[in-house]
Amino acid sequence: MQATVITIGDEILIGQIVDTNSVSIARRLNEAGIVVHEKCSIGDDADEIVRTLDRALAASQVVVLTGGLGPTKDDITKKTLARRFGSAMRYDEAVALHVERMMTSRGISFNALNRSQAEVPACCKVLFNRHGTAPGMWFETADDRVVVSLPGVPFEMEHLMEEEVMPRLKAHFALRQIVHRTLITSGLAESVLAERIAPWEEALPDYLKLAYLPSAGIVRLRLSAYEVDGERIGREIEARFDELQRLIPAYVVGFETATVEAQAHRLLTERRATLAVAESCTGGRLAAKFTAQAGASAYFLAGLVTYADEAKTHLLGVDAEAIRRHGAVSEEVARQMAEGARRATGADYALATTGIAGPAGGTPEKPVGTVWIALATPTRTIAVRQACGTDRGQVIDRATIHAVRMLRDELQR
Amino acid sequence: MQATVITIGDEILIGQIVDTNSVSIARRLNEAGIVVHEKCSIGDDADEIVRTLDRALAASQVVVLTGGLGPTKDDITKKTLARRFGSAMRYDEAVALHVERMMTSRGISFNALNRSQAEVPACCKVLFNRHGTAPGMWFETADDRVVVSLPGVPFEMEHLMEEEVMPRLKAHFALRQIVHRTLITSGLAESVLAERIAPWEEALPDYLKLAYLPSAGIVRLRLSAYEVDGERIGREIEARFDELQRLIPAYVVGFETATVEAQAHRLLTERRATLAVAESCTGGRLAAKFTAQAGASAYFLAGLVTYADEAKTHLLGVDAEAIRRHGAVSEEVARQMAEGARRATGADYALATTGIAGPAGGTPEKPVGTVWIALATPTRTIAVRQACGTDRGQVIDRATIHAVRMLRDELQR
Repeated sequence: MQATVITIGDEILIGQIVDTNSVSIARRLNEAGIVVHEKCSIGDDADEIVRTLDRALAASQVVVLTGGLGPTKDDITKKTLARRFGSAMRYDEAVALHVERMMTSRGISFNALNRSQAEVPACCKVLFNRHGTAPGMWFETADDRVVVSLPGVPFEMEHLMEEEVMPRLKAHFALRQIVHRTLITSGLAESVLAERIAPWEEALPDYLKLAYLPSAGIVRLRLSAYEVDGERIGREIEARFDELQRLIPAYVVGFETATVEAQAHRLLTERRATLAVAESCTGGRLAAKFTAQAGASAYFLAGLVTYADEAKTHLLGVDAEAIRRHGAVSEEVARQMAEGARRATGADYALATTGIAGPAGGTPEKPVGTVWIALATPTRTIAVRQACGTDRGQVIDRATIHAVRMLRDELQR
Repeated sequence: MQATVITIGDEILIGQIVDTNSVSIARRLNEAGIVVHEKCSIGDDADEIVRTLDRALAASQVVVLTGGLGPTKDDITKKTLARRFGSAMRYDEAVALHVERMMTSRGISFNALNRSQAEVPACCKVLFNRHGTAPGMWFETADDRVVVSLPGVPFEMEHLMEEEVMPRLKAHFALRQIVHRTLITSGLAESVLAERIAPWEEALPDYLKLAYLPSAGIVRLRLSAYEVDGERIGREIEARFDELQRLIPAYVVGFETATVEAQAHRLLTERRATLAVAESCTGGRLAAKFTAQAGASAYFLAGLVTYADEAKTHLLGVDAEAIRRHGAVSEEVARQMAEGARRATGADYALATTGIAGPAGGTPEKPVGTVWIALATPTRTIAVRQACGTDRGQVIDRATIHAVRMLRDELQR
């Protein structure tokens, strides 16, 4: 089972947007046992769309397209697909009603352009897009290939993939499994790591594929088995994965893609513990990391973004004298912020960040990127100083992740 | 002048990483007047690499490949290109010396794998990678096409594109200009906007292309002219762009990559006014929008993420009776939150959000996506109810943008 993912839009080709749609689509197809052998981005050009689709259909049983389904003139995917499949257009009353309701609820008049969104190729099955105005479309070819066209707005595409496309693909095709296991390592350069595990790697059977994914301070090792049948290969990959871990135990820092915030979210929820955060340099990002997750209201009581010193003293009860003596970016202030947040909100746990995000504000003793992170728990308060990089966005991101990890580690103790 | 960008790596096809390399490469090529007509991602597979490269060379004068240049077994791009170009490998002493120095400086021994990085196809020109161990490669075909192979590590690729590839492309080809102008609008749905500017859009000459790029609360309008010669078309695009602005002056929030938060940031800074935010459904995102900007500490005093009702009453002084009577998602509570944030922090302006981000918590009267946004100023408090969509991430994003825009509009009154 092979698939091609085609993303359509000039904005991708001129580098105006990052294409995250194809990443998510590829991940979902892969999880279901469908191998994506090519991803392709092309412009809003009818000939290019048809040419690329024909090429994709020659090699793939499944083709997923995104983009070009909006109501405006530059959106031509729908008409191009109708032409390619030799189909007339029909007016879908259910889609029309839905779009009209969406527009009305936003106080927008339902105009001719909106109406055009309810026009679909007669030969396709409509995938109902309850989160947006452009319907998804499902086409089947005479030789049993499937072409799916989805809107390019990421969350609309996500919902359609999850709720409509994946269930239909699973029902339509007999899918086999793809297994990936990823070991996250830190502390060994890629070349040294490769040398260290060479005998193990050479002994791998042909159907297991190893990949190295280096990034800042981390090398991920991914072991993959494609189109797996039965349980034997699943057991084999697990056994090889265990061997790999035993070769480099001191350098293993994690597995797969599990995010620390999801782990902290789960631990807090399970324990019915509550959380508050007090932020300076992370400026709301830390609170947003937790509250982006559905169900966060079960444990997240409050966040206090105390950017100004007065806010730290007034809202969190940080001692003004401590700020004067140690500076706002200091262990003492971070600890008082965390304890103050616990006190002010009654939360079981409170995280605090205070640092220099830059670009201004650095000193030789406390350069840009210096961040103090503190965690107050029912039994103790801990604090750590972290160097979080040199770029403002990077400092905020890294400090946020460090803080979440500090909480996760404490909850796992 | 057409180009194809090919990114190589199984990690892209299984959705393990987001491909930002091709975005940056496309942007640079575009700025230099080279039209990227296709971007393609394929796996670490020799046949697939050769097939895709051949196809690209049939349509493009420039092909840029990234990835597959590391020292490990899964990296096969270099050998595949040597085979495709019928070239033997040679050992590059300068690269070897550089890699050895890099390894030594990190306290890592120079091993056989590192040594292999100095092997390059004899027919290519080495693009020296001073930030990494894998050299870039520049190939020229008999019919004067250029193939560039770059490492997949983003910052190494960036430096090579900037310092080696772009200067060589500009020297090698006679390039023409591509002009893009982007108008950022907010407050009109895509369909309404399209209707409003339809006569202007229809009068555009063929060589000017208009694109609509909708995202949360915002629609970007991009006007593009490809392969421009002389100054006439540059002037034409500016004239049309001015006309466009005059059609919808109240909805223009910026140009190119500017944002409403940057406008609010500038206005607050210029007026030496201060800001606080009180957030429920946006959960810290609103504070983060402001604090992500360098210099925010000049005006941003504090944010209060009052997720729990007790936090609203305790930290902001919201009347518990108002919550009981109207619900936490209500005009009354939004107003009290904004006013409470002003009072608690002493800020000149305070924004507040309270809504139902979902997926749970909606009712027929207040469905998921219902958000009340309030702004308290030195002279008055205003509040507005907004339907912000149905998906949790979308609701948070839209409510955040609406709130920032409300402040921006008030500051511009």
